[in-house]
Amino acid sequence: MELLQKVSASLVSLKNKKPLVHHITNYVTVNDCANMTLAIGASPVMADDIGEVEEMVAFASSLVLNMGTLNARSITSMIAAGKKAKELGIPIVFDPVGVGATSLRTATAKRIIEEVSPSVIRGNMSEIKILAGLSAEIKGVDSISDEIDGEKVARELSKKLGCIITITGKQDIIAQGNLVCCIANGHAILSQVTGTGCMATSLIGCFCGATDDLFAATVAGIMTMGLAGEMSEQSLQIGEGIGTFRTRLFDAVWSMTPEMLEKGGQIANA
Amino acid sequence: MELLQKVSASLVSLKNKKPLVHHITNYVTVNDCANMTLAIGASPVMADDIGEVEEMVAFASSLVLNMGTLNARSITSMIAAGKKAKELGIPIVFDPVGVGATSLRTATAKRIIEEVSPSVIRGNMSEIKILAGLSAEIKGVDSISDEIDGEKVARELSKKLGCIITITGKQDIIAQGNLVCCIANGHAILSQVTGTGCMATSLIGCFCGATDDLFAATVAGIMTMGLAGEMSEQSLQIGEGIGTFRTRLFDAVWSMTPEMLEKGGQIANA
Amino acid sequence: MELLQKVSASLVSLKNKKPLVHHITNYVTVNDCANMTLAIGASPVMADDIGEVEEMVAFASSLVLNMGTLNARSITSMIAAGKKAKELGIPIVFDPVGVGATSLRTATAKRIIEEVSPSVIRGNMSEIKILAGLSAEIKGVDSISDEIDGEKVARELSKKLGCIITITGKQDIIAQGNLVCCIANGHAILSQVTGTGCMATSLIGCFCGATDDLFAATVAGIMTMGLAGEMSEQSLQIGEGIGTFRTRLFDAVWSMTPEMLEKGGQIANA
Repeated sequence: MELLQKVSASLVSLKNKKPLVHHITNYVTVNDCANMTLAIGASPVMADDIGEVEEMVAFASSLVLNMGTLNARSITSMIAAGKKAKELGIPIVFDPVGVGATSLRTATAKRIIEEVSPSVIRGNMSEIKILAGLSAEIKGVDSISDEIDGEKVARELSKKLGCIITITGKQDIIAQGNLVCCIANGHAILSQVTGTGCMATSLIGCFCGATDDLFAATVAGIMTMGLAGEMSEQSLQIGEGIGTFRTRLFDAVWSMTPEMLEKGGQIANA
Repeated sequence: MELLQKVSASLVSLKNKKPLVHHITNYVTVNDCANMTLAIGASPVMADDIGEVEEMVAFASSLVLNMGTLNARSITSMIAAGKKAKELGIPIVFDPVGVGATSLRTATAKRIIEEVSPSVIRGNMSEIKILAGLSAEIKGVDSISDEIDGEKVARELSKKLGCIITITGKQDIIAQGNLVCCIANGHAILSQVTGTGCMATSLIGCFCGATDDLFAATVAGIMTMGLAGEMSEQSLQIGEGIGTFRTRLFDAVWSMTPEMLEKGGQIANA
Repeated sequence: MELLQKVSASLVSLKNKKPLVHHITNYVTVNDCANMTLAIGASPVMADDIGEVEEMVAFASSLVLNMGTLNARSITSMIAAGKKAKELGIPIVFDPVGVGATSLRTATAKRIIEEVSPSVIRGNMSEIKILAGLSAEIKGVDSISDEIDGEKVARELSKKLGCIITITGKQDIIAQGNLVCCIANGHAILSQVTGTGCMATSLIGCFCGATDDLFAATVAGIMTMGLAGEMSEQSLQIGEGIGTFRTRLFDAVWSMTPEMLEKGGQIANA
């Protein structure tokens, strides 16, 4: 089966299964992540207290850990929920927001990766480079294009950590060992709304909760956000801007069909 | 006075009084609850630190307790604010989000009910069944329709706890002892936006802060959300979806008039 | 250079510099503040854990402290980040939300002002009067119009604290010692959306991160919100209300140009 067919099939699975996706996430974009989860057809739960996360994650089909506004309390909950999910075989999607910016973020990302073994990690280029220990080397080699470099970084980090690595940016990269694909969907305006990265991570979590093919699930999550961004941007009239774009992004994800993914998805190197 | 007239009169009272509604709530839908409170014409305050909740609630006309993302810190604040509100005769509206899902939620709901004596409790069918201690029995009797069963559950729990019980779902049920009414407003799409339950609870809080007739206030809150859902859904054009629906939900509540409630409200068994 | 030209020039600076604006803020409007920061062309970061705020603020061009839902944890972080920002010469914009409502808020505002020396304080009339220690006197003199009184209050508090004082309301007042200006932009509907005050404070933070002329930056932030409110209100069609207004507010800020500020800005007493 071609990758695009697997992607569209994963949306069929998601709509049928309506997976429960447990998030432990940040307080900036938590509402957007919950609404995006509902928009694609899954069910969100955002419990984050240490007194209940292990019990809650046991009902879930996937776990999303996002360290956007991490703190002592949420870190403890992320680790506990992550360990429980790992024990139960529930896929874990990790968004290492801002890793490298502070030592707390770098240490926390390292700890989550070591103790929880995420199934998928999604970040932007600089976050993934930090995880790959490459920031120092890379600083001096700006002439290497991000696209070429990114594929190599993603592939090698994927092999090292034994998980799927996704780098989102102008072109999105998904790597599972030597299996790498690039997605050309999306629009620059997505970076002007807070939480589009977090929402992409949540969408990956939704698809991972509905299929065992986590590579296709990751591609599906990234592609859904990219296509929705295109659709929303194209709908803008004169005078409309980022507020309307953001509203329509939810409209677009809500109306996404397997056919639209197959027709609109732009995969390279698959 | 007919119930519908009492409902529309409570909106007149609300618009005149602009009650201050103190919320201690979850971080997922807190912004929506604040905006819904403003949209109907009340004034929200969301303070939740133990160092100020008792002082803050003393200014309020009603208190909304919502355990969507409960934690040790917020539970303590809910109990303290609730006790103070009870002492001062300020109505308390309680939303036991996810009760039954984890032991922390079940224990917290029980504790709030015992220590704070809410005036109104709003939940979905499974949440209210858990509070009524009925989950075990009910599991095997799926053939009993939710509507009929729900009225009985609500009535009996209302008598047992001495408070108004509201069950929201396809048909909404409001019970105060033997006084029971069902509301047929609303639309299934409401369940595809996060926080519509929380927002309904907030609306009940707004009305309870403006009238002594808490039964009419509860009906008014539920009916306002249901009617707004209908109006918003009917306004959707091709290509529009859940994002636009959510935006228009606030438009609809903001434009709600006593006349619209009297004309559009669908009450049964009143 | 005229003040309006300085204001429009500060928007040019902002668009070029894309300043990083570190917020420690409340969980009600944090998403709106992040999106408003992006809409005007700056970059938001909302980290609030004591383990990283000092490290994070060192990267920022300005710091916004907002005590909307203050708690023991966030107060500690605000003080620590504020002290670091002060040490590094990074401008601090402080929003003393609800000061005077509870003793925790009054004590916290006092502590932040003393320990952190904000560059700009923005509040509504009653918040600023509390900071000026005027509440008692003022209660009995309701006949004095707010506009006239406000200018004096702002000017004297500015002198006392050595910072810019902004009072937002029907007419907005900005004072830096004897330099005072009033802005007549805005629309009453802005008060019916939660967080428009917080967002105005964030916009001031964005402009303060892009220019050394903090008075012009403050005027620019206030004027941008006021003009955007006018544009958004004027765009409303029959049946549209507060939800649509809020969406278009982001559209309007996103599309704001230096020319629009120069043409639409209404300054008095400059």
